[in-house]
Amino acid sequence: MKKVKMGLIGFGNIGTGLLRNLKNNKEIIEERCGCEIELTKIADKDITTLRNVDYDKNMLTDDVYKVINDPEIKIVIELIGGLEPARTFVAESLKKGKHVVTANKAMLANFGKELFDLAKENNALLLFEGSVGGGIPIIRGLQQGICANNIKSIKGILNGTCNYILTKMTEEGSSFNSVLKEAQEKGFAEPDPTYDIEGYDSAHKIAILASLAFGQEIKYDDVFVNGIAGIQNTEISFAKELGYVIKLLAIAKNHNDEVEVRVHPTLIPQDNMLASVSGVNNGILVEGDMVGETMFYGRGAGQDPTSSAIISDIMAIAQSIVEGGCHKDTRLLNLSDIKKIRPIDELESSYYLRFIVIDRPRVMARISSILGDQNISIECCIQKGRNIGDYVPLILTTHTTKEKAIQDAIKEIGKLDIVKEKPFLLRVEE
Amino acid sequence: MKKVKMGLIGFGNIGTGLLRNLKNNKEIIEERCGCEIELTKIADKDITTLRNVDYDKNMLTDDVYKVINDPEIKIVIELIGGLEPARTFVAESLKKGKHVVTANKAMLANFGKELFDLAKENNALLLFEGSVGGGIPIIRGLQQGICANNIKSIKGILNGTCNYILTKMTEEGSSFNSVLKEAQEKGFAEPDPTYDIEGYDSAHKIAILASLAFGQEIKYDDVFVNGIAGIQNTEISFAKELGYVIKLLAIAKNHNDEVEVRVHPTLIPQDNMLASVSGVNNGILVEGDMVGETMFYGRGAGQDPTSSAIISDIMAIAQSIVEGGCHKDTRLLNLSDIKKIRPIDELESSYYLRFIVIDRPRVMARISSILGDQNISIECCIQKGRNIGDYVPLILTTHTTKEKAIQDAIKEIGKLDIVKEKPFLLRVEE
Repeated sequence: MKKVKMGLIGFGNIGTGLLRNLKNNKEIIEERCGCEIELTKIADKDITTLRNVDYDKNMLTDDVYKVINDPEIKIVIELIGGLEPARTFVAESLKKGKHVVTANKAMLANFGKELFDLAKENNALLLFEGSVGGGIPIIRGLQQGICANNIKSIKGILNGTCNYILTKMTEEGSSFNSVLKEAQEKGFAEPDPTYDIEGYDSAHKIAILASLAFGQEIKYDDVFVNGIAGIQNTEISFAKELGYVIKLLAIAKNHNDEVEVRVHPTLIPQDNMLASVSGVNNGILVEGDMVGETMFYGRGAGQDPTSSAIISDIMAIAQSIVEGGCHKDTRLLNLSDIKKIRPIDELESSYYLRFIVIDRPRVMARISSILGDQNISIECCIQKGRNIGDYVPLILTTHTTKEKAIQDAIKEIGKLDIVKEKPFLLRVEE
Repeated sequence: MKKVKMGLIGFGNIGTGLLRNLKNNKEIIEERCGCEIELTKIADKDITTLRNVDYDKNMLTDDVYKVINDPEIKIVIELIGGLEPARTFVAESLKKGKHVVTANKAMLANFGKELFDLAKENNALLLFEGSVGGGIPIIRGLQQGICANNIKSIKGILNGTCNYILTKMTEEGSSFNSVLKEAQEKGFAEPDPTYDIEGYDSAHKIAILASLAFGQEIKYDDVFVNGIAGIQNTEISFAKELGYVIKLLAIAKNHNDEVEVRVHPTLIPQDNMLASVSGVNNGILVEGDMVGETMFYGRGAGQDPTSSAIISDIMAIAQSIVEGGCHKDTRLLNLSDIKKIRPIDELESSYYLRFIVIDRPRVMARISSILGDQNISIECCIQKGRNIGDYVPLILTTHTTKEKAIQDAIKEIGKLDIVKEKPFLLRVEE
């Protein structure tokens, strides 16, 4: 049996899980890709802390170039995360003609095209199944599964932390802060949860998926992002009453000459498949012109699911090395079309609006008059409970309108003396 | 740009859709796989009926060997369905070293191993994404997406007709016969619906998935099959009351030295992801040791979804021809392990039982005494409505027990003078 040697850069949580899983499933992995796979070197800044997995300490080095410059190593696995030095290490590895497997969403969402071009120039593969959706094979699903389709849209629940928080708020009526605290205690949220709850993680992931699906470079900075921190139980319960649930959705749509890429908490109908994706799970609903709507679902993070994705990339590369042949596992990677990114102001959507208003006559008249001036038509209006003279929430949903009109209207409404707090807005995706 | 020539065998409904889709998406297909793809010959018994798609009539022949023996043709697409002559045509094509794309589930579930071996011998690819789940990329999902996993189980809603019928019965309370009639009128069920509603279609599909997942030949005949025809509204509404929905489920489980493969209507919890799969859609929930539970969802049939799958296979082959390299898009195809198929008698499950009994004292005592004799313990018992001296339905659910015990018990109970009709049984999957 032929042997393929690999080196690992970054021996943290995911790297530790990878080693354990490579070992546990060694037999089936090697049988299925027709060769022996051997990890020969591991580079990490920290070579002293003991990892909770069985490994040969002699493999460990704090000099990353012992991996990058080793002529025996054909596959480099990059698991340090972040932009630099990951980008440099990956670039150097590709320049040496090594294949690279990475789960680094931030790096790809910022420097993807540059690295894919470099891979192509050097006849190397750069695979990244683990960068989006944990163990869910969404990258292969797009690149190979539905590669014949003109992909119209992707709607994804891509962040397990946010989905856990929103699910708990919906199921148990708990507040955002108390669920966040609980999630941190359970290890489902980081001590500093900003990256997840502000939507940055989802934005990185949708940038990668949209690039693949639409065949053009879409960077993190191209994505409009709103997080879930402002959501109150008011939103959760009114959404329910109106037949919706609230999810942090990453949305990418292909218009003819423009693309639309955004991340924000979104009202989706209760009978939408994505509404069933609960807890820390992820779900990605893709619409193609032939396939219609198809969904990929599963655990979006964690040592084992991410190992599943990373090893599938390793197997693909190992097999193509052994077959001595095609190094192109990468349909859909011609990032060439240049469509304009549609500015968020031009978004067309329907909206959920929450105003905190004084409960007295003519309040609705004043608000709806401002909306009317912007040609915004109201679909539904709920004011629960009476409390004359005091403040109460007034919930409105609108028919489809332009984001610019809504933003102008709520700015205007926010100035009214009958309105307390900044008006709160959610977008609706039917 | 290089050119790859193909021939089509079978110009029916799916073939017609394939031609239309190849034409519609010609540009993106060719750009993505880096070569021109040309269909040069079509063989069909019927060369006179006009198909509802634009094509060159000169391509059409009623001599299938004009396709099989054409040295220019590198890819043969088999879309005639059924066992013979499909099997012979595919075998002859492979022997000529041609790659084959098929959507023929019956052929693969009966002669899969023989044909895969033949493909291997001739260094040809035999791809079959369209054989299961329409446009859902479940075959690649197993072979490449989660190929590093030891796959523990597959649970699938694999037949759109049955799922449509059960969904309508659940949502609208309509009877089996009236929904079947409506489905036939809408084209969601065949004039002779036997193949679908008796579970044969699902059995073919789960045989294919189980073979891939467990790495051994599992044939159609190895699958235990029960259809949905006996299901009454009684079952639907009691299931709902107990927190379940009824789905025709294809189940494959990997025990250490045995595999379990079966198709039958099944009670699943309402919060299971598969419970959300409604109408003509399919959903396949796969459990792997690393990835945990992951689901693939989408349209399981139809011209366009099936074209999406078939063209993804064509693209994979065309690309590997052009790359001049590896012809092994087929991890997980070593059908070698020989595990025993567990007989249905040895199944361990919990059960839903419906008896039609006389409404009078001591009925429950007699029934539960027989169940007790078989060591079957009752989880829940519902008798709705009183009608003393007349017949009423008595619904029982059991804790986990052996199928043999249940079958023996209901045979015994069926003989009681207090019981009308044959007792009706459904299996529960938690």
